[in-house]
Amino acid sequence: MNASSPCHAASPRTLLLDDDHFHDECGVVGIFAHPEAANLAYLGLYALQHRGQEAAGIVSSDGEKFHNHRGMGRVADVFKADDIVRLLGNRAIGHVRYSTTGGSVLRNTQPLHIKYRHGSLALAHNGNLVNAKELREELEHAGSIFHTDMDTEVILHLVARTEGKDAGERLATALTRTKGAYSLVALTETRLIGVRDPLGFRPLVLGRLDSGGYVLASETCALDLIGAEFVRDIAAGEMVIISEGGIESRFPFAPTQRRMCVFEYIYFARPDSTLDGINVYQARKRIGRELARLFPRDADVVVPVPDSGVAAAMGYAEATGIPFELGLIRNHYVGRTFIQPAQSVRDFGVKVKLNPMPSVLKGKRVVLVDDSIVRGTTSAKIVNLVRDAGAREVHFLVSSPPTTGPCHYGINTPDRSQLIAAQHTEEEVRKLINADSLGYISIEALYQAMGGREAGYCDACFSGDYPIFQDHGMSARQLRLIREA
Amino acid sequence: MNASSPCHAASPRTLLLDDDHFHDECGVVGIFAHPEAANLAYLGLYALQHRGQEAAGIVSSDGEKFHNHRGMGRVADVFKADDIVRLLGNRAIGHVRYSTTGGSVLRNTQPLHIKYRHGSLALAHNGNLVNAKELREELEHAGSIFHTDMDTEVILHLVARTEGKDAGERLATALTRTKGAYSLVALTETRLIGVRDPLGFRPLVLGRLDSGGYVLASETCALDLIGAEFVRDIAAGEMVIISEGGIESRFPFAPTQRRMCVFEYIYFARPDSTLDGINVYQARKRIGRELARLFPRDADVVVPVPDSGVAAAMGYAEATGIPFELGLIRNHYVGRTFIQPAQSVRDFGVKVKLNPMPSVLKGKRVVLVDDSIVRGTTSAKIVNLVRDAGAREVHFLVSSPPTTGPCHYGINTPDRSQLIAAQHTEEEVRKLINADSLGYISIEALYQAMGGREAGYCDACFSGDYPIFQDHGMSARQLRLIREA
Amino acid sequence: MNASSPCHAASPRTLLLDDDHFHDECGVVGIFAHPEAANLAYLGLYALQHRGQEAAGIVSSDGEKFHNHRGMGRVADVFKADDIVRLLGNRAIGHVRYSTTGGSVLRNTQPLHIKYRHGSLALAHNGNLVNAKELREELEHAGSIFHTDMDTEVILHLVARTEGKDAGERLATALTRTKGAYSLVALTETRLIGVRDPLGFRPLVLGRLDSGGYVLASETCALDLIGAEFVRDIAAGEMVIISEGGIESRFPFAPTQRRMCVFEYIYFARPDSTLDGINVYQARKRIGRELARLFPRDADVVVPVPDSGVAAAMGYAEATGIPFELGLIRNHYVGRTFIQPAQSVRDFGVKVKLNPMPSVLKGKRVVLVDDSIVRGTTSAKIVNLVRDAGAREVHFLVSSPPTTGPCHYGINTPDRSQLIAAQHTEEEVRKLINADSLGYISIEALYQAMGGREAGYCDACFSGDYPIFQDHGMSARQLRLIREA
Amino acid sequence: MNASSPCHAASPRTLLLDDDHFHDECGVVGIFAHPEAANLAYLGLYALQHRGQEAAGIVSSDGEKFHNHRGMGRVADVFKADDIVRLLGNRAIGHVRYSTTGGSVLRNTQPLHIKYRHGSLALAHNGNLVNAKELREELEHAGSIFHTDMDTEVILHLVARTEGKDAGERLATALTRTKGAYSLVALTETRLIGVRDPLGFRPLVLGRLDSGGYVLASETCALDLIGAEFVRDIAAGEMVIISEGGIESRFPFAPTQRRMCVFEYIYFARPDSTLDGINVYQARKRIGRELARLFPRDADVVVPVPDSGVAAAMGYAEATGIPFELGLIRNHYVGRTFIQPAQSVRDFGVKVKLNPMPSVLKGKRVVLVDDSIVRGTTSAKIVNLVRDAGAREVHFLVSSPPTTGPCHYGINTPDRSQLIAAQHTEEEVRKLINADSLGYISIEALYQAMGGREAGYCDACFSGDYPIFQDHGMSARQLRLIREA
Repeated sequence: MNASSPCHAASPRTLLLDDDHFHDECGVVGIFAHPEAANLAYLGLYALQHRGQEAAGIVSSDGEKFHNHRGMGRVADVFKADDIVRLLGNRAIGHVRYSTTGGSVLRNTQPLHIKYRHGSLALAHNGNLVNAKELREELEHAGSIFHTDMDTEVILHLVARTEGKDAGERLATALTRTKGAYSLVALTETRLIGVRDPLGFRPLVLGRLDSGGYVLASETCALDLIGAEFVRDIAAGEMVIISEGGIESRFPFAPTQRRMCVFEYIYFARPDSTLDGINVYQARKRIGRELARLFPRDADVVVPVPDSGVAAAMGYAEATGIPFELGLIRNHYVGRTFIQPAQSVRDFGVKVKLNPMPSVLKGKRVVLVDDSIVRGTTSAKIVNLVRDAGAREVHFLVSSPPTTGPCHYGINTPDRSQLIAAQHTEEEVRKLINADSLGYISIEALYQAMGGREAGYCDACFSGDYPIFQDHGMSARQLRLIREA
Repeated sequence: MNASSPCHAASPRTLLLDDDHFHDECGVVGIFAHPEAANLAYLGLYALQHRGQEAAGIVSSDGEKFHNHRGMGRVADVFKADDIVRLLGNRAIGHVRYSTTGGSVLRNTQPLHIKYRHGSLALAHNGNLVNAKELREELEHAGSIFHTDMDTEVILHLVARTEGKDAGERLATALTRTKGAYSLVALTETRLIGVRDPLGFRPLVLGRLDSGGYVLASETCALDLIGAEFVRDIAAGEMVIISEGGIESRFPFAPTQRRMCVFEYIYFARPDSTLDGINVYQARKRIGRELARLFPRDADVVVPVPDSGVAAAMGYAEATGIPFELGLIRNHYVGRTFIQPAQSVRDFGVKVKLNPMPSVLKGKRVVLVDDSIVRGTTSAKIVNLVRDAGAREVHFLVSSPPTTGPCHYGINTPDRSQLIAAQHTEEEVRKLINADSLGYISIEALYQAMGGREAGYCDACFSGDYPIFQDHGMSARQLRLIREA
Repeated sequence: MNASSPCHAASPRTLLLDDDHFHDECGVVGIFAHPEAANLAYLGLYALQHRGQEAAGIVSSDGEKFHNHRGMGRVADVFKADDIVRLLGNRAIGHVRYSTTGGSVLRNTQPLHIKYRHGSLALAHNGNLVNAKELREELEHAGSIFHTDMDTEVILHLVARTEGKDAGERLATALTRTKGAYSLVALTETRLIGVRDPLGFRPLVLGRLDSGGYVLASETCALDLIGAEFVRDIAAGEMVIISEGGIESRFPFAPTQRRMCVFEYIYFARPDSTLDGINVYQARKRIGRELARLFPRDADVVVPVPDSGVAAAMGYAEATGIPFELGLIRNHYVGRTFIQPAQSVRDFGVKVKLNPMPSVLKGKRVVLVDDSIVRGTTSAKIVNLVRDAGAREVHFLVSSPPTTGPCHYGINTPDRSQLIAAQHTEEEVRKLINADSLGYISIEALYQAMGGREAGYCDACFSGDYPIFQDHGMSARQLRLIREA
Repeated sequence: MNASSPCHAASPRTLLLDDDHFHDECGVVGIFAHPEAANLAYLGLYALQHRGQEAAGIVSSDGEKFHNHRGMGRVADVFKADDIVRLLGNRAIGHVRYSTTGGSVLRNTQPLHIKYRHGSLALAHNGNLVNAKELREELEHAGSIFHTDMDTEVILHLVARTEGKDAGERLATALTRTKGAYSLVALTETRLIGVRDPLGFRPLVLGRLDSGGYVLASETCALDLIGAEFVRDIAAGEMVIISEGGIESRFPFAPTQRRMCVFEYIYFARPDSTLDGINVYQARKRIGRELARLFPRDADVVVPVPDSGVAAAMGYAEATGIPFELGLIRNHYVGRTFIQPAQSVRDFGVKVKLNPMPSVLKGKRVVLVDDSIVRGTTSAKIVNLVRDAGAREVHFLVSSPPTTGPCHYGINTPDRSQLIAAQHTEEEVRKLINADSLGYISIEALYQAMGGREAGYCDACFSGDYPIFQDHGMSARQLRLIREA
């Protein structure tokens, strides 16, 4: 045998595992009046880890001093027991962030904490402002300086330049200037404040601790972990101000129709969370049943792309009677990066996470269920894995409508030019991913599964109907026409 | 509100998450004749991470020099791209280890690498020797010195004191002196050697790389990740010697009945692995069907304890027609440790990993399926979680027989005094875990699911029938009588 | 023997080695037009490490993007080769900082880097503003928000709110609002700017690189290391603006008498630096000769407290003819912290750094020369070490006048209540430090050694003559009366 | 200006600062009967840091269990307070190591700790065995396996194969088999043992703690730091056995003439140490006076190469009356490595450590005093620095004789081919280092300064008179003839 010498081997590279999904950019948590506030905030972030794995931070307050600890990486890596100990005080807010760009750096980590004429203010923000750039220019023109690239800093500057009888009023007035999505938690010397933007794009829930303290969090799963009782969802357009005197609710913005992000249910949120009254797991199962209604297939097995496709696949299997099988096994130890061999193993990036099961797939007609197709590259690899494992037919069903546009409200999405459904017909997509058939749920069926569209959802990435647009001189409809031209 | 001052808060502690399972102590991998041997070994260890998360190591060889890198933690934490680059050579062996005791330290990390009169030898070992202590005393008496506490070092000393025409013969002769379980990979200047003990307790498989090189690994899932083709299982009692001249197979030990660990199928191995011809996922589904035969229940939902109970629960659901539901959602970001609040959240250790779903469980008669009950503490907490979420009845089915004895063959098990099934009747266990009914699969039904007991399995932890015992002056039967007295 | 059991041993603590000196708070460096700007900035910081060991940072610019890396610790620990690589661009500024308080944190690390209406601006600042607090209040009142606790951020806000034809003019106008000490370097997209406050408290020098680029640095020793040619000192009140068009010099402030910190020569600066035309080592030797003139002693040996007392001791020995001997040996490997035994070794904090030499000291009349006595505690320990080593007499000479007041211009000093010379007569100090005689250089003799007081020095910490005072409604003399009352 | 673009800049490299000296390879310490044994061992290693900066380790014992912590780097980096806490027990031994090769790795770090038939044994070794290779082969032939590349492991194997009434006797018998240099400390369950080889190449001293416990250390400076009283030097060929019963002294080897390494006094040891009755600082000053006697020069200043040349330069200055000046300032913050610019600064490696002083050197006739010339490259750079700073003449005096051969007894030396004095005449060396004159102290004058050669010194690296040679079939004289041919 002619063994290669080691010097022929190219250097291994670290592969950033891109799972080809849209990604939530943030999760937030706030704790008020608990002696272990920072520790509960840490646990809350742990439960919200799926909303952002790139960076995490907590700011606590003992009523006078604010303390903060932030870092790049997952919650378990950013915080050590010593760090928690140093986060003194009985109130705290925390934040997890997903990478929006490769140039992610420590200084763009939240919560932000500033001092201004009314004292200290810390803020953690889930969402995205569409008029951040122009507000920033206006603020800079008026003499503001920016330490970060984050929208959150715009909000802080607006607050600092606003009059008002209390921090809540100042924050509300500042937010009135902004356009976009925000579910945010803020901490002053005496108050924990939670706000959800008037359209309520991102979720925010309120819980109560046994001790009498309160919790704000992006999802109910954070309440569950710390043993907090769910009180209610913060409403679209609501501000809650929690102080030692109790909870005050305000609605400082002009009323409008709620537009909760429907993709939170399809993919972003944890299945065990219940948002605005709808349990995520049950919603996904109903979507699977709708898929069964739309796309009955002569198949031998229903196989989910784990883990996000599991519930919909179960719904499909229940509705059709076709056996539900785990034909793709997920490696639970996979992190965000991986050292890759120089001589690339075929379909490596997918194989690291998923291993096909010949004993399930061989000779079978397979219905594969996934939550979305973004660029299509991963879907194609998965179909190949399933075919290589012996599947006779592969029918690909998707529990979201075709994603044809980016999100401007806090979700990390690729350019329209990279969205396979924006560039290709369904038949072309089917061929590109090498499936025997392809079915996307329709927007109508999706709302059927959600209990009707009356509740008010944002589906802009499917429909192009953007509730707020960056160039707001034009109507959304006008913009849509322009964009689609 | 009377907010607590921060100085009242006790310090948070880091909690080692104990999931109350038996644990495999090791996984091994070997690569021969590939220019990126260390990188493939790293990937192999990644796929075998479930067999040991405490420490990992790789030794590579360029034919002259041996290079090693070892560390505490998971594979992704122990190895950085730079470390892989320094592991020169086109052959390598690797090892992952599970903690056997709290006092785990770096020097007990494998592979071990020594120099002796015949050159260099590196060894990675999955298993446990029952006569290690007496061999060690004998070797020390003859002047050997020990740097570690590991059985593996005993094997190396035996090799160094053995004559033989080649490394394979010396290793075989040395192993003849040992009693116990070992699936091991060894590296010399010119050869990669794999050996499985005569009873074949632990698995070991052989694969071939596109490049013409070879792979040895504990499970087939490691072959899948690196794109190696499965060739065959190494047989119980077989030694394979891989050199530039090809593969040589030897059977240096006295032939005996195979006794493969049946628990590898029930819990240890990854579901996508196929060991000695039996796919693990399919075996688990068949076990679930046997549970359905033994314990039909009037129930509304079948809920697995994820992830190890999923396949058996699916088998049960298929056989009974009761809907399969995810009533417990697992947090995928949980590591081995966690910072815990001082004022403990109720059932915290379980909650960190599992969140019950009221929308699935409320008012339901639930069949819970788990792979085993070890101490019973975790099972009790899980039943409580399910009841707190509103379940009307909880029927607990277990896909292994009652575990009444420890393992001496490479599995990390608690003392007999801590095994709930060794200390209590089934009815007592049912009460202790607060289930409405409890059913363990019988040994007979287990073998039914495995395709018959003729293949030869070790079930000592259920049956007390220890194939090799530490005090080998007595028969296993005698010892059993003594122990049970 | 009754050996103590390990559980009796108290836990070791990490000791922050306090050498009982005043400490410079910062050093700065700037590089313009060199392809390895960040690397040269790193080297410059290395040479200036004695001006601040607590934190370090560099901001570089490629003309468009700014890049930064900052961290806690020494330069060698904060920067790895990879970090330097990422600091792209052919210009850079850097900063080292000394801890001003125990609560030192990452976010107070410089250089600061902001975006404002005129683009990007990075700033590194050596010095202290006496009206920072009131400026900050004023700025906050006008809507500014503060991310840090540093004076430097005040300057940045002032710049952002200032009109001007270029960055230099804006910076000058902003600085006109401030009172205090600053030697600073700033970086814009196109320019490197250096400014020294009108009184010129802190040094700042200009050098030229072979490549044609320029260097600004706190001391000439930084030029020496990177092979830059010394061009000249930046004058008190001067601003230099370095662009691709060359160097422009401006004097934007009202002219006033220079007041360079005389302690830079006595202790802070490196002996190999030459500041405003005076070499530090030679100045210290001349101070030693003045000590000989003032305090001739019948002694056998002159022993410096290393390293800061060495040059003055040499000057004293030369002038008196008494042999110069190393009677205290310094441990060169001492860092800023140390793990201390629980059962404290006597005079441990001093012993870690200095070991007395009985072969030099035994039976001798010793003249000990040190640069200053601050709290007196360390001086007392050193005299004890010398006596314990057998010295017959210990005469303590100090190359600075008694330090009776704190510094407000960028030096880290203890409270007046902790300054032994502010609380005690010279005779009391002599007794407290257990010396046979004590001599401080007089202010007059000090200026004699400096070549006359005409050059203009700040000696406020000795004389109470503060050139700028925090409450500037009163004259310095009025304030002095009040303070001394 | 034509600024280079960043992509033209080559990558910076980390430079290992080689100061072109021979280097001691190790320092050892042992503590017996003190409740903070590990902490005192840590402090002892700190004081001995100059004997090895590459790695450090401590093994402690509580009488039953042994605990160890080892790592790469300096003592302050290897040990954190937590590590010290875990090193339980009232006795401990420690070791610092200098890199012998670039391939330094963790597993070659001491102390070694083994288990063998008589229990546990830990060993830390300063020195080098000349017959290690053949002993190793013999041991391997007898079945020993080696985990490290260190001589120390040979000693441990010999002990394990030796009979004897106690650990001391076994260790003595084992050492009788070895040839070479060793000053070692060993720890058993009940005893701390110190041994110095029959020729006593390396120092070893005994001290007593206030608590009644004992200390062994390579140099007295370690006793000073921990407040231990110096008792006496361990004699060449002596073994001390310290137990709870007290100290026992044995002389187990055949008596021979002491041959203490004379270079310990010239360079290796700390100036504040006193070894075998001679204080290092005073010895160096006397060597300087001998240099003055041999090489009187018409010069203006005597300048040491700091820090090792300081004492000899002071002796020279005292004897000649020529003023002693610090003409080269040392950077105290330099570590072992440095990030170097790609476009190398001229003489960078020297400049990082030394900065010449034009104010001292300009126009002067300079006597430079250094302790040795090894390869000559650094000496040449230093002479250049001094000339570039304006020196008119540079006379280079060396406080050691020409180093013409390597050391086999524990000092890290380059090959003979790299020793400038072995390859060139003195006049050639003078030209190569660009000095106006060159003077090495003679061996005779060296012994004059040491108080006479009768005490017995090893000067093999100067004289070629190797007390023990690797090929011991020939006499040292025969070997010398062969080598010099």
